Amino acid sequence: MSDSTVSKLDQSKLDSLPVGTVRRLNRLADTLGRFSMLAIDQRGSLRRMLARQTNQTPETVAPQSLQQVKRIVSETVAPLATGILTDPTYGYPFSADVIPARVGVLLAAEVSGYVSPAAREEERLSQLIEGWSAGQTLEAGADAVKLLIYHHPKASADTLAHQRKIVETVGQACKSCGMPFILEAVTYPLNGMDKRSADFARMQPELIVQTARTYSDPCFNVHLLKLEFPGSLKYTQEYQEAGFGNGEVICDRSEVEEACRRLDQAAQVPWVILSAGVTINEFAENLRLATRAGASGFLCGRAVWKHVVDYFPDKQAMHQHMSTTGRANFQKLLSINKQARPWHEHPSFSGSDGSVDC
Amino acid sequence: MSDSTVSKLDQSKLDSLPVGTVRRLNRLADTLGRFSMLAIDQRGSLRRMLARQTNQTPETVAPQSLQQVKRIVSETVAPLATGILTDPTYGYPFSADVIPARVGVLLAAEVSGYVSPAAREEERLSQLIEGWSAGQTLEAGADAVKLLIYHHPKASADTLAHQRKIVETVGQACKSCGMPFILEAVTYPLNGMDKRSADFARMQPELIVQTARTYSDPCFNVHLLKLEFPGSLKYTQEYQEAGFGNGEVICDRSEVEEACRRLDQAAQVPWVILSAGVTINEFAENLRLATRAGASGFLCGRAVWKHVVDYFPDKQAMHQHMSTTGRANFQKLLSINKQARPWHEHPSFSGSDGSVDC
Repeated sequence: MSDSTVSKLDQSKLDSLPVGTVRRLNRLADTLGRFSMLAIDQRGSLRRMLARQTNQTPETVAPQSLQQVKRIVSETVAPLATGILTDPTYGYPFSADVIPARVGVLLAAEVSGYVSPAAREEERLSQLIEGWSAGQTLEAGADAVKLLIYHHPKASADTLAHQRKIVETVGQACKSCGMPFILEAVTYPLNGMDKRSADFARMQPELIVQTARTYSDPCFNVHLLKLEFPGSLKYTQEYQEAGFGNGEVICDRSEVEEACRRLDQAAQVPWVILSAGVTINEFAENLRLATRAGASGFLCGRAVWKHVVDYFPDKQAMHQHMSTTGRANFQKLLSINKQARPWHEHPSFSGSDGSVDC
Repeated sequence: MSDSTVSKLDQSKLDSLPVGTVRRLNRLADTLGRFSMLAIDQRGSLRRMLARQTNQTPETVAPQSLQQVKRIVSETVAPLATGILTDPTYGYPFSADVIPARVGVLLAAEVSGYVSPAAREEERLSQLIEGWSAGQTLEAGADAVKLLIYHHPKASADTLAHQRKIVETVGQACKSCGMPFILEAVTYPLNGMDKRSADFARMQPELIVQTARTYSDPCFNVHLLKLEFPGSLKYTQEYQEAGFGNGEVICDRSEVEEACRRLDQAAQVPWVILSAGVTINEFAENLRLATRAGASGFLCGRAVWKHVVDYFPDKQAMHQHMSTTGRANFQKLLSINKQARPWHEHPSFSGSDGSVDC
């Protein structure tokens, strides 16, 4: 080897993952490889929360309001986190200077929300932010691309193909520039079922497990799955008295624990859980159960910061709330997350590289 | 602004520097913005050191020997540093897994050493590593590009144009992908003068000052200058008895301090000093004087680790030396570096953005 040639970096000891990808994944984690991440990339849901608080319609909420809330949440909680997920529209450009350099940054790749095909109004199609790419995410100083995709295994072939295509596109774009690809796969009901109903709660754990299995396929190039918790403590026997319960019981804790184990087996890449707007106490219990089963941590949004909106537009009061309650919420999760599995200890890294033709 | 459009990130509050560049510069520094960086990108000089130690010619030193020494130095000292400069040939691919994710990485862009034009054998032309780019450096998970350039203001117009062209090329490549550009500008003697002579020592401070001024021009897009110390304590009155002196005196300390001040005025971007193979004690004093004058820290190589080669090829002894003496050397510098100027407090950031046509 002469001084003027360069070794192939992706043939280093780091095995099947390119060195840049490994380095960036490590930047999102603590020194042991556990993810304690804050999500403040909400756009549609934050807009709706602000609209309710200010008696407006979501469309009339000013961009500056979203920017301001995101900045306050980032400034107060990011210093506690190993990584922060924000968005390139209202978040990062207005918060980058308050995110410590040692905290990893993930940027959302999708347009908030979804559209539905004309003939199938329950189905959900994701869209990518126009004019934004994995390469730009990298250049902007972020460490990973996050894509939210809605998934129902029984959606029409067209919808499934559309979603699959988007995941493949982002996966390839990430691969071509060494960016970690974090896929947030979210399930939804069909056939007129209410997302919050007991009927959906009965079937959702299996949907989540199937979704994790589907998008673990190496052809999608996903490095980390961001998943829903495979169970609802609201409907679980042992939590009825913990304040999460709503009176109706459909399962007991052992069934939830079993769903967590099945999810861990289905996920062929490291995974973290999301909070989906549950309370901080319910999410803390979700995290306890998920990390016992093999989750590598959390990427938690509203459970940590949702009450900041109650203080909008009082900037000082929002800051005060996040500096106290918001930080305490996150610290509660940090404490539980000590038992999370370091991402590089995921079983998928102990065998061969598992690459197959897609 | 709709959810599907992306703000121009380089129009954020971070002013004239793109947000990705700022984030990466901060990754190379401590939380206050001071650089405490280790250089282990030596190729030619390390090869010569290993050749002397093993009674070989430099050409016959095995690549594995360079890789091994670089890995041991990286593993033992990088955890103390805010950043590590290594190379993409023998260094990074074989050391990346021992560099903590929170430590910034700089990769060398140039071929080690120089070539001389046929008719002017004293002049020095730099060359870029073939098949390697700022974009690849970014993708590989590094945070900055470092280019070493030799400079003498009285070199021929052809040589000056060649060097200038290379700096411009790398500067543009860095700019196009948001990478910080660290330029190491090193002076050298002409007219048969010995680099270690008193004659050259008399003129070198002014050469270093001129070099800093030349490459501070915004058209080169340099974010940080890595500079020689503008004086030699070996020839300085007050240091004759400190063990650095060689008996001949050409100046006193106040003149060295004055040269440091002139250098700080000439450098229109933040700057750090390099160690050029002096002893750790001499470099510690260099750092004390430079940081008093406005340097933002150091990027130090051989002064920290050169004696590791004395233990080659005993891997355990090399490790032991670096874990004790090597780390203690670096810690000595960390202590002095507390007085360094945070890079973002450089006077150039307090005025307008200073961009001009090149």
